[in-house]
Amino acid sequence: MRIAEQGARIAFQGERGAFSEEAAIALLGEQIVLVPRPTFEALFASLEEGASDYVLAPIENSLAGSVHRTYDLLLERSLYIIAETVIPIAHHLIGCPQARFEDVCVVESHPVALAQCERFFAAHPHIKRIVADDTAGSVRHVVELGDPTRAAIAGARAAEVYGGRILREHLEDHRENYTRFVLLANAPRVVPDADKLSLVLRLKHEPGALHRALEPFARRSINLLKIESRPVAGQPWQYRFYLDLQVGADAPELSAALADLRASVDQVRVLGSYRAARL
Amino acid sequence: MRIAEQGARIAFQGERGAFSEEAAIALLGEQIVLVPRPTFEALFASLEEGASDYVLAPIENSLAGSVHRTYDLLLERSLYIIAETVIPIAHHLIGCPQARFEDVCVVESHPVALAQCERFFAAHPHIKRIVADDTAGSVRHVVELGDPTRAAIAGARAAEVYGGRILREHLEDHRENYTRFVLLANAPRVVPDADKLSLVLRLKHEPGALHRALEPFARRSINLLKIESRPVAGQPWQYRFYLDLQVGADAPELSAALADLRASVDQVRVLGSYRAARL
Repeated sequence: MRIAEQGARIAFQGERGAFSEEAAIALLGEQIVLVPRPTFEALFASLEEGASDYVLAPIENSLAGSVHRTYDLLLERSLYIIAETVIPIAHHLIGCPQARFEDVCVVESHPVALAQCERFFAAHPHIKRIVADDTAGSVRHVVELGDPTRAAIAGARAAEVYGGRILREHLEDHRENYTRFVLLANAPRVVPDADKLSLVLRLKHEPGALHRALEPFARRSINLLKIESRPVAGQPWQYRFYLDLQVGADAPELSAALADLRASVDQVRVLGSYRAARL
Repeated sequence: MRIAEQGARIAFQGERGAFSEEAAIALLGEQIVLVPRPTFEALFASLEEGASDYVLAPIENSLAGSVHRTYDLLLERSLYIIAETVIPIAHHLIGCPQARFEDVCVVESHPVALAQCERFFAAHPHIKRIVADDTAGSVRHVVELGDPTRAAIAGARAAEVYGGRILREHLEDHRENYTRFVLLANAPRVVPDADKLSLVLRLKHEPGALHRALEPFARRSINLLKIESRPVAGQPWQYRFYLDLQVGADAPELSAALADLRASVDQVRVLGSYRAARL
């Protein structure tokens, strides 16, 4: 089954050459309309504005961890996960065509990209970091400026698209660097070959509450792939929990597990049932 | 009992006027020697270098969530938590004395401070964000530059220390904004009135593993205050879990619970037993 209809408009955060663009094409092929958006806010607003049919957002990197803005905005906007994909990430230092590594003293990139090159910045403390909305956009900016003291951190695809020069390869702290993206829609989707389920819950305030919430899945041998806690704004030291479970949407044990879960927690919302990406 | 001996050297990340400085004094009083360090790497290295006796590090903000660098470095450096404190955070936009809000187009601050003023930046998309190592240091920098188009985000204490002008008050997304700090030492400490315990664990790879790891505490009504998962570098989609438990170090049920835990998980390390901060 096709995930997105031919010609569907897929919004992503960034500009041409971004890792998100690469992920969109890996997941959906070339027969889609790409809708770039400069910020996460604008990305998530694009569905309500009618400017896109789906949103593709990074949700987790294997080094930096979860992308908290995606977790928070997914909930604020009441969206559903209908698919996911994983792509490998290699970060390069990219300057304008005349740049040399020795001259670089300012590096701009997306905060997640900066965060996963910590060792590079620790080894070069004179290099200043600037937050940009997008890895690829920072390459475009650096090439446009033509200032040899500035560089960007982005993938090789961005260097190619904008004519940047790769000054150092593989700045990422570890080579096992992957980013997982989720495809989000306004409505839930029945995916016949779904084998993964995501949900978000609020626990009751009592000892053992998380243990009891996990029990319906543990008892039925439903594997918990990931748990993420996020603070509840305005209620210090209270959290909501995002769970990813390895289970098909029509698995006979799932509806009973969800019924048990609803009985033991304050709130639960299923975020989607979809096909897990293979690494 | 005194947490740190008189004249103890307390390293913190930032410069004079930083929230960390405020937290150090709130926790330990004025009879300490403050050791400012420009980066998290330098902060955590200060103990091994013999430049400090203790490290005070932010571990969680009630809006932005966990400070992942602290979780990661605490483990890399094999440190122990011996105390914690919580302080309220109010973020102000601070410029040089002649600055006006209308002229500001670049704002620098610590990435956590920038992250918790998302609404301000969404409402002022022309303002560019620059990552700095420290909130207070960004105020010092802005005042030194004397450039009215630049401003910093920091607490009122930093404006006072460096003679900056507050251009906008309370940029934080929510007023219920608190940061929790932990005091770290090279060795564990017996704290007689401890009522909180932190540990980190690696689960076995099997369904129900997290549920089983929580069972020894749930069964004994030991309250789980927080759970944080962090990726294991080099092993995509594998996590370690940090648990905060509401339990005294000499509670009779604790040693049995820890023995049960060790039998059900791959690795466990107690990070410390200490007195919980009151909000």
